[in-house]
Amino acid sequence: MIIKEGDTIVLIDESGKKTLVRIDAGGAPGKEGRAVKMAGIGVVDISRIIGKPYGSKARLGSKEYYLMRPSITDKIETMKRGAQIILPKDSSAIIMHADIKPGDSVLESGIGSGAMTAALANAVGPSGKVVVYENREEFAKLAADNLGAMGLLSRVEIKIGDVTAGISEKGMDAAVLDIPNPWDAIGRVKECLKPCASLASYSPTVNQVERTVKELEKTCFIQIRTIELLEREIVVGERGTRPSFDMLGHTGYITFARKVA
Amino acid sequence: MIIKEGDTIVLIDESGKKTLVRIDAGGAPGKEGRAVKMAGIGVVDISRIIGKPYGSKARLGSKEYYLMRPSITDKIETMKRGAQIILPKDSSAIIMHADIKPGDSVLESGIGSGAMTAALANAVGPSGKVVVYENREEFAKLAADNLGAMGLLSRVEIKIGDVTAGISEKGMDAAVLDIPNPWDAIGRVKECLKPCASLASYSPTVNQVERTVKELEKTCFIQIRTIELLEREIVVGERGTRPSFDMLGHTGYITFARKVA
Amino acid sequence: MIIKEGDTIVLIDESGKKTLVRIDAGGAPGKEGRAVKMAGIGVVDISRIIGKPYGSKARLGSKEYYLMRPSITDKIETMKRGAQIILPKDSSAIIMHADIKPGDSVLESGIGSGAMTAALANAVGPSGKVVVYENREEFAKLAADNLGAMGLLSRVEIKIGDVTAGISEKGMDAAVLDIPNPWDAIGRVKECLKPCASLASYSPTVNQVERTVKELEKTCFIQIRTIELLEREIVVGERGTRPSFDMLGHTGYITFARKVA
Amino acid sequence: MIIKEGDTIVLIDESGKKTLVRIDAGGAPGKEGRAVKMAGIGVVDISRIIGKPYGSKARLGSKEYYLMRPSITDKIETMKRGAQIILPKDSSAIIMHADIKPGDSVLESGIGSGAMTAALANAVGPSGKVVVYENREEFAKLAADNLGAMGLLSRVEIKIGDVTAGISEKGMDAAVLDIPNPWDAIGRVKECLKPCASLASYSPTVNQVERTVKELEKTCFIQIRTIELLEREIVVGERGTRPSFDMLGHTGYITFARKVA
Repeated sequence: MIIKEGDTIVLIDESGKKTLVRIDAGGAPGKEGRAVKMAGIGVVDISRIIGKPYGSKARLGSKEYYLMRPSITDKIETMKRGAQIILPKDSSAIIMHADIKPGDSVLESGIGSGAMTAALANAVGPSGKVVVYENREEFAKLAADNLGAMGLLSRVEIKIGDVTAGISEKGMDAAVLDIPNPWDAIGRVKECLKPCASLASYSPTVNQVERTVKELEKTCFIQIRTIELLEREIVVGERGTRPSFDMLGHTGYITFARKVA
Repeated sequence: MIIKEGDTIVLIDESGKKTLVRIDAGGAPGKEGRAVKMAGIGVVDISRIIGKPYGSKARLGSKEYYLMRPSITDKIETMKRGAQIILPKDSSAIIMHADIKPGDSVLESGIGSGAMTAALANAVGPSGKVVVYENREEFAKLAADNLGAMGLLSRVEIKIGDVTAGISEKGMDAAVLDIPNPWDAIGRVKECLKPCASLASYSPTVNQVERTVKELEKTCFIQIRTIELLEREIVVGERGTRPSFDMLGHTGYITFARKVA
Repeated sequence: MIIKEGDTIVLIDESGKKTLVRIDAGGAPGKEGRAVKMAGIGVVDISRIIGKPYGSKARLGSKEYYLMRPSITDKIETMKRGAQIILPKDSSAIIMHADIKPGDSVLESGIGSGAMTAALANAVGPSGKVVVYENREEFAKLAADNLGAMGLLSRVEIKIGDVTAGISEKGMDAAVLDIPNPWDAIGRVKECLKPCASLASYSPTVNQVERTVKELEKTCFIQIRTIELLEREIVVGERGTRPSFDMLGHTGYITFARKVA
Repeated sequence: MIIKEGDTIVLIDESGKKTLVRIDAGGAPGKEGRAVKMAGIGVVDISRIIGKPYGSKARLGSKEYYLMRPSITDKIETMKRGAQIILPKDSSAIIMHADIKPGDSVLESGIGSGAMTAALANAVGPSGKVVVYENREEFAKLAADNLGAMGLLSRVEIKIGDVTAGISEKGMDAAVLDIPNPWDAIGRVKECLKPCASLASYSPTVNQVERTVKELEKTCFIQIRTIELLEREIVVGERGTRPSFDMLGHTGYITFARKVA
């Protein structure tokens, strides 16, 4: 419950802004304590953090921050983005409907910035595994950095390669696709899955959904179903309660299906 | 990968209807094989199931069925309902945003028919634990039966009691409330949670959300946020693709908040 | 303000159920007053209606009814349906975004049960006109009956024919299409419209929207825009306020475009 | 069909941006034609507009514009805003469900920037009338300017005053409220309405809806119903069709009710 050197914590300021930082020892104590430079925060006296209980408040520079243990959504929210990510709204539904649980081995492609991978690695736990195919090396690198900072990289195996060209894994418990042409991967994915296992495919356009569903039907998957999730925030304010004026109109469609023998 | 005596499987017919059944040995082989009576299916020759691979098809009575390993959503979909349940659309978001993961100890109240408990027990895995307070004995009984049939009861401790009157657990990783008066439980819940842990409260009305949010503010929770999820199904049919004509208009609002020191 | 013979009124019972009836004189006064048989209501003493003020309450048979002047939505709600109708949620948006106003001449096709035609005839008023092409005689007949009962038939000209085969009107202020193949009609519709006039096309599937939009682009329409409207009801009940559990998931997409020279 | 001096037209550029302008004669023809300064456009040679057919294209300054007859939504979109307006999505539903039609006399309060008033004045036509109470003179002034520019001011009577303090009109066909405290106006509004007439009240928060509905019930209105409309745009692009990523999360709730005797 006490923050110590080597921990990764999330700093949350009054406005709710979050910054993920790793707690380093800092140099020898000087006039301003043990000074450490933190990206997005500035130079801070690390002795105001180390040894403090999680959930406490500290003044760092000119601002007050809560010192929090990072949740999976904190991690996803603060990661570096090189591409549009799959948001928690969608990744949580994928995990539930594709029946992903502790100990599972999950196939994924592509990795993007690693947000979906992080959600999967979090859900399968330390006894599970996520194998991700990504053919763009710069995304593989970015995602590996992100997963490392989140402490989730040990559960993930990143392979540079194209999932439509071949998958060497067998007996996987589930597969999650976020590629422009999922229909080209479905045959390969089927071979790598256990019987009864689920495939989830995330696509922004209706046309991709149509081709994916038709290919799933041809490939004898069952329980093919496509959903879309809309998240609305409800604001409880002094002038009354109402839905937020802002809302995400669309992210992507998620198609689910299950392999049979 | 082979179905054996004692397994719980889900039978899925051509229309997609699911029936959860436990595979018993059946009597001595007779004229019609080893006959077993299955609720919702009829009398079946169990030798058409035992020894078959998961994901295969069998003719039972007059119908064809897929013999499937039950997913968490199969389990929730087929359970006996004594009250409105928290649907996967909402329980998946609760698990993600309340940062519930393998190995966690989660406090819950009330149990209802056990659908949320099942989703939680599935997410925390065999090394995690769900402690549920429920003051209506008939719901505790129904939920215990449901969780038993799902194979998840060993991860769940059901306590007959009122969460607003006192919680004996300490250091819980998260709390999930589905009670009519969450505001009355917030103080107690805060004490049972670890610092930085999340509380999620599910309520059908705006008025409940308002009282809950105000109580959370008073009790010094941070990152208080209420969301609502709308799920739309997309139908890819022969006459074209469109959203389903049917849609659930509302289930409940989910309020999240985090404990600080 | 007084109900008289020949009026068409709507009877609304305690549950909110509406019945549209035309007030006939009835026979000579008998033991039970001047008896008139009303479909959906039973035999009523018409003297309990004639001479009463609009908005008053009357006991007819065994029930109490409000005697109301029918609004356009009362008329649409109570009409006989031979096909899926365009609901007020969509017809109101069509009228606004296609700039349909008092005095306008509007082209429409097809007529279906006449719900969209009724909304249009109501919006253009007694100085306006709606010309509808419909190639299925049974729908033309049903819609004419419905529009007659609503008192709107005098503003409507129904033509048996196919709008994709030719339109004899010129200088129309707007056009509204609800046909399976709007793309086949766009060239003809363009010719019948005034410069700057709007076309609105209603289609249930995304595939129809795509073909329509592509044809509109090819035909040099501008300001092409497709929308979908979701209507949610909010229930203020004794146990609190919440959105209705029931909600229409999808009706149709509406594509708008404007003709240029 | 030919643009002439004194007309109000809307200029639409390639990006879809709209500018409402009144066509003045301009000075004596000079080197650059008859120069006229147009706000938002620059100095233009008015002879490139006057005498041209509606719907044609003209180069004004360095850009191409369509010269269009302004639709009601063009007018609302281009008006000056001093406050949040009621959008066409909501005003179209109000007009339909409050049964507002050509020739009607409608009571409104408050006027805001005049967007709802414009929609009402457009719907009642030249034979109808909108009487608006507004107690903030600066809004009355802004709205009068806007309605003047739209050519709709002759159908509107603006009264400086508070609708909760008294309404001198009688026998109105409908009433539309957009004030912070509609419950305080309901008694007065009831007196000014014809029997069977509708009241529509627009409010951003749930709490306002609750108080309004309770006051309507107490005041014996019937058919009380509250709705919310969500508008989604569908984008047909080269990379496929999908809902727009942007969406308005919430504008306001609309409560409808009808007066009985």
